Amino acid sequence: EPPVAKKPCLVKLSYAERAGLPNVHPLASKLLKIMEDKKSNLCVSADVTNCEELLQLADSVGPKICMLKTHVDILKDYTEGFSQKLQVLAEKHDFLIFEDRKFADIGNTVKQQYEGGLYQISSWADIVNAHVVPGPGVVKGLSSVGKALGRGCLLIAEMSSQGSLATGNYRQAAVKMAEEDSDFVFGFICGSAFSMRPEFIHMTPGVQLEAGGDVLGQQYTTPEEVIYNKGSDVIIVGRGVLEAADRLKAAELYRRSGWDAYTKRLSPNSN
Amino acid sequence: EPPVAKKPCLVKLSYAERAGLPNVHPLASKLLKIMEDKKSNLCVSADVTNCEELLQLADSVGPKICMLKTHVDILKDYTEGFSQKLQVLAEKHDFLIFEDRKFADIGNTVKQQYEGGLYQISSWADIVNAHVVPGPGVVKGLSSVGKALGRGCLLIAEMSSQGSLATGNYRQAAVKMAEEDSDFVFGFICGSAFSMRPEFIHMTPGVQLEAGGDVLGQQYTTPEEVIYNKGSDVIIVGRGVLEAADRLKAAELYRRSGWDAYTKRLSPNSN
Repeated sequence: EPPVAKKPCLVKLSYAERAGLPNVHPLASKLLKIMEDKKSNLCVSADVTNCEELLQLADSVGPKICMLKTHVDILKDYTEGFSQKLQVLAEKHDFLIFEDRKFADIGNTVKQQYEGGLYQISSWADIVNAHVVPGPGVVKGLSSVGKALGRGCLLIAEMSSQGSLATGNYRQAAVKMAEEDSDFVFGFICGSAFSMRPEFIHMTPGVQLEAGGDVLGQQYTTPEEVIYNKGSDVIIVGRGVLEAADRLKAAELYRRSGWDAYTKRLSPNSN
Repeated sequence: EPPVAKKPCLVKLSYAERAGLPNVHPLASKLLKIMEDKKSNLCVSADVTNCEELLQLADSVGPKICMLKTHVDILKDYTEGFSQKLQVLAEKHDFLIFEDRKFADIGNTVKQQYEGGLYQISSWADIVNAHVVPGPGVVKGLSSVGKALGRGCLLIAEMSSQGSLATGNYRQAAVKMAEEDSDFVFGFICGSAFSMRPEFIHMTPGVQLEAGGDVLGQQYTTPEEVIYNKGSDVIIVGRGVLEAADRLKAAELYRRSGWDAYTKRLSPNSN
């Protein structure tokens, strides 16, 4: 008998199996099914600054991704019509929309930031994320808006940037907060899988085909490392796709790379 | 001889004295002068959801405050014209504008969020703030936009919400990051003064005339406690003013309360 693996049990379950778990959040279940159907654990980070380019990107890479990540507040020309068009594309290509807002204020404020203002994020983003540093109130505030709409939230348990303070006890606090509000929180932004609950999704940013970094402290790791070695579920790729001469081709490369790492992880011979 | 006070030295220096310190950031110096001139260490948090109401509030309480704090992303009807009008009022009444964006992403992203999008925050906000959890890159990214414009940044070293993770080592990391980029960072959002450098400004949210809390984890403390006992410099008051029947009268009440606590702190008989 080999010793029991130390990796969380989710690592050896397929996305499809996890989609059917009794305690899985409906949005996590939907995501896992999309991933299985499209053979994609790729989330493209659409960090472009005009709406037309973002919509073109979404329409182009749509078939290759399970999720599109936005920073709506870097778009120069955002309109309500844009978010409607994005939702049409998400429907057409079957991907989820994740607004990477990183909410990080007290409950009463994030509530208004999520629901109100020009962006009305809760009206179009399936998924948002939040920092845990404010304490549980940030989740309560967001949940008071999003839960009834069937939305979901990821907690930022770790960051890919150099010198991040999201380590150790901080990550444990994120796990606790997620477990306490698992009717709204369904996973984590992190470097590796750590939750013992297979119904939680782990998503990892800072992914490129070659490891490295940028001049402002970002640090990159590879799809193989993230999915196979670290047991995470979704790779988030920004500049690896956006800066490619052919973005669709690059997206397909990342999709295949992430999927190969996942099938390798499931194979009985892997550790 | 009494024992040496444990409080940071800034506590016994006047705002005017600190405004003239050799290493003070130009924006901190400007703020300290405004505080001394207007006898106000009050920052009103303008958490309203339409532009007209915000401008009316700013024009009304303007003479009583040293700073106005905004959440531009909760305004339903933000336009570029609004930020121009707000700047005119800031000039008219001599207060600084602080957009409480709580930037909390990697450097390359916050750079775009600060400069771009619909809000172009760097074009009108004297001051912004940032969480330290992403590591030093968040400051580098913001500084690459704001420093040349003469803007300044506050780091969130502590939060007023229940169960906040900004404690202990986290606060120390904030101090280190501030000291490393003191040509852009000039102070902290915190519960009490802790920096030994009198050129740094400490600003405290969650202030009301009576201690208490809200249902989403906010916790309140009083002007006397914040300025006199905790040695902070600026009280940030939101609902205490906004929910008053007469907002101007409430602002004057908070101004006087904060100022009295400050003069009491400076008096030779206080500890």
